Amino acid sequence: MRNDNKDDKNKDTNTKDTRGIQSPKSDLGNWYSEILVKSGFIDYSDVSGCIILRPSSLFAWDVLKNYVDAQFKKLGIEDVYFPLFIPEKYLKKEEEHFSGFKAEVAWVTHGGDSKLDERLAVRPTSETIMYVSYAKWIRSWRDLPLRYNQWNNVVRWEFKHPMPFIRGREFLWNEGHDVFATEAEALAERDKILGIYEKALKEYLALPSIKGQKSDKEKFAGAVASYSLEMIMPDGWAIQGPDFHYDGQNFAKSFDIKFLDKDEEIKFVYQNTYAITTRVLGVMVATHSDEKGLVIPPKIAQVQIVIIPILGRDNEKVLKEAQNIKRDIEKSFRVVIDDREGYTPGYKFNEWELKGVPLRIEIGPRDIASGSVVVVRRDNGKKESIEISRLNDAISRILEEMHNSLFDKALKFLNEHITMVESYDEFKKVLSEKGGFIQAGWCGSVECEDKIKEETGAKITNIPFEHKGLSEHCVYCGRKAKFMPNFARSY
Amino acid sequence: MRNDNKDDKNKDTNTKDTRGIQSPKSDLGNWYSEILVKSGFIDYSDVSGCIILRPSSLFAWDVLKNYVDAQFKKLGIEDVYFPLFIPEKYLKKEEEHFSGFKAEVAWVTHGGDSKLDERLAVRPTSETIMYVSYAKWIRSWRDLPLRYNQWNNVVRWEFKHPMPFIRGREFLWNEGHDVFATEAEALAERDKILGIYEKALKEYLALPSIKGQKSDKEKFAGAVASYSLEMIMPDGWAIQGPDFHYDGQNFAKSFDIKFLDKDEEIKFVYQNTYAITTRVLGVMVATHSDEKGLVIPPKIAQVQIVIIPILGRDNEKVLKEAQNIKRDIEKSFRVVIDDREGYTPGYKFNEWELKGVPLRIEIGPRDIASGSVVVVRRDNGKKESIEISRLNDAISRILEEMHNSLFDKALKFLNEHITMVESYDEFKKVLSEKGGFIQAGWCGSVECEDKIKEETGAKITNIPFEHKGLSEHCVYCGRKAKFMPNFARSY
Repeated sequence: MRNDNKDDKNKDTNTKDTRGIQSPKSDLGNWYSEILVKSGFIDYSDVSGCIILRPSSLFAWDVLKNYVDAQFKKLGIEDVYFPLFIPEKYLKKEEEHFSGFKAEVAWVTHGGDSKLDERLAVRPTSETIMYVSYAKWIRSWRDLPLRYNQWNNVVRWEFKHPMPFIRGREFLWNEGHDVFATEAEALAERDKILGIYEKALKEYLALPSIKGQKSDKEKFAGAVASYSLEMIMPDGWAIQGPDFHYDGQNFAKSFDIKFLDKDEEIKFVYQNTYAITTRVLGVMVATHSDEKGLVIPPKIAQVQIVIIPILGRDNEKVLKEAQNIKRDIEKSFRVVIDDREGYTPGYKFNEWELKGVPLRIEIGPRDIASGSVVVVRRDNGKKESIEISRLNDAISRILEEMHNSLFDKALKFLNEHITMVESYDEFKKVLSEKGGFIQAGWCGSVECEDKIKEETGAKITNIPFEHKGLSEHCVYCGRKAKFMPNFARSY
Repeated sequence: MRNDNKDDKNKDTNTKDTRGIQSPKSDLGNWYSEILVKSGFIDYSDVSGCIILRPSSLFAWDVLKNYVDAQFKKLGIEDVYFPLFIPEKYLKKEEEHFSGFKAEVAWVTHGGDSKLDERLAVRPTSETIMYVSYAKWIRSWRDLPLRYNQWNNVVRWEFKHPMPFIRGREFLWNEGHDVFATEAEALAERDKILGIYEKALKEYLALPSIKGQKSDKEKFAGAVASYSLEMIMPDGWAIQGPDFHYDGQNFAKSFDIKFLDKDEEIKFVYQNTYAITTRVLGVMVATHSDEKGLVIPPKIAQVQIVIIPILGRDNEKVLKEAQNIKRDIEKSFRVVIDDREGYTPGYKFNEWELKGVPLRIEIGPRDIASGSVVVVRRDNGKKESIEISRLNDAISRILEEMHNSLFDKALKFLNEHITMVESYDEFKKVLSEKGGFIQAGWCGSVECEDKIKEETGAKITNIPFEHKGLSEHCVYCGRKAKFMPNFARSY
């Protein structure tokens, strides 16, 4: 999948093609692209690496975003909006940060026909433009903590093969940039933010993740320490999700962000940054979906229930009852009726399955006679006959069961793909046969980390906060192990 | 104000400077900039024309946006997200559209160190990139209507002097792009959308506006007809607010957006576009605020009420009662307590007045003894003593009164600045002495429109849907009048 050379521009984007998905899920790259486009979740644009979020994908993002934003606000984090364009001189202020981003900056050089005096970066991230202002705004301990977050679009001009959501040139995200008077306060924020992200993944996207610290080699450009939630893709490759960076006083010193403390001393501030991006939608789609199309967890599905009247006889009665049911359940759920003429029920079933709508309600003359309807779950095809009078409660229960079962299945897959090894031979064997995360002892040296990457393709995804046990020896050099990281091939 | 040559980059941005506003409101440009920055509503950035929306301004925008978006969704309009970058060849597809925007496009020419094959426009508006996709997605009458909206950031590289919110290089907005099978359906949408915008201005920003049609000269590049809500600034200049464009089949023909109709004929679609931008926040601030600082209508105020304990004696009791009051009212309102030590009540009053917080509650030992508090309105300084037990109801009433009184005052000002004239001499006299909107007969020729603009500086803002009466003669040429537009000097 990573070496797939097909150009994303030439994908079939005819969303009316519901003849079904041609690629098996084992052909992950093609299957993934096919279900995303044919379901109408996204489309490609002519700008390589930039995708179009159609209503159902933007809806899912907005639900996730609203949840995360509400949690942020409870912590006192406020939303702001900084300019899209960053003067080159700002970007250069923090050397390590600039060297981490300069290869993939999109540069604006002209306004109309005029060449700009200084070229402007389309923000790849906003530390530099925000911290110039922070240096002006922060004067005293009374101004701290300052906790500002942005929900915006950022651009990173990657040259690797793009993959919708997973790797692209423009994406949507939050970027939180918090400032504290003390290191202790800054560090105390870590678990709160990671906890919000972890819960968002679990409760909304039905995705399990592994919380831990990045190795120094893999940390964010400019951070003291980075932390991440790592997930797994169906091909056994790891993928990084939301992250949190403790920046210490690095940016404070480059940007001169100081304050007069209560003790009348001038001090540099301590900073954190954190982000969740639309990438998680890609992991969600790849994890739960199947060869019929998308499977979307109920809480983020734009349409949660489709009612399909089975027409043929008593049509008027059937349609009326379908309308009644819709009216009854749409107070609590997002519902549509598919009463299009000229399509068979089977055709409609396929189309809504392709789109990933969590529940289908089938209603025909026989159902009306018995006062019940058939409710079908998208993820496992399980059918239940439900009394119409008990429909609201039953739907709540079934949607919850579906969410939990998606999460449990994903958790099982993740757990099956975490393997603890004691030797480098075993490491290589597991990696080539099963993939996934390999927990192994590590001495902490970047040399061993580099060698492992070079020889196997696996990097340290993170050093989990929780792990089963610590090996005695570094899996590569045999010296005493200090850490128990996860290694994996990673997107 | 329009000829103000001060560079926006050099404004004092020390938000801690609460010594009060130095400029009188009559010095609109300086006063406006001063209150925006000193109150912490916005700040300038080093990129001319790009401002920073701090928490209170982004909060106001988000409330407005959430209201408008909810109304859109009731009409069946769905949110989408299209790429930020538009290939130059797309922009060129609709000639009139391109010529309207090309002078102010920000161009991306490089990704990292590589020169791009084709330069990319940072979207000034998204018709062209959206309609390329529409042409792919729309096949049959079943695909229509298609109603997609985006909330995003756009860039127009203006070379005129920037003014926060009012004229800048990057702003936030919605852009709605709806497609219909028939002209009648497209036209029927106009009043619904304009109605949503009008209500949003009135109910949230307390701003009155004038609904009407733009002249051909002033319509949107690519539209058949444009409609707008026009407002007035405190200096008597007009300012355009949200707008709606009926595009007919113009873009459909340039972008080849066709569908197979029920009658088996292939037809071009009919399209509308519509937008509201952060500009309206500028009009809101300029209209309601005063020489003490911002005045923010209650519904969009991030902090609606500040409780200021009057300390000196019985401090513990006073602070405890302030906390009790906060707990009691914060279920319904956005409340903060200012219990900072080392600041006088007077200093705090000034600071919160500067920030435009709608209500102040003062509570001291005497108030506690009498079981009441003093509630002070920001807009008119009116004080009321309110029993603590009746506070929730009283606050609801006072905030509603405040909103209505802001709107009524703005409406009175607007109405006082609409003058109907019969002669060109009168036209020029009113324009120079009073400004505002001048209603006058117009033959409909672009020659008269041009001449009036050239000789007086006033353009046609719009031709109001409602006006008092039609003049017999064109105010410029004396021929029979066909329309009764408003003329004004306009931002």
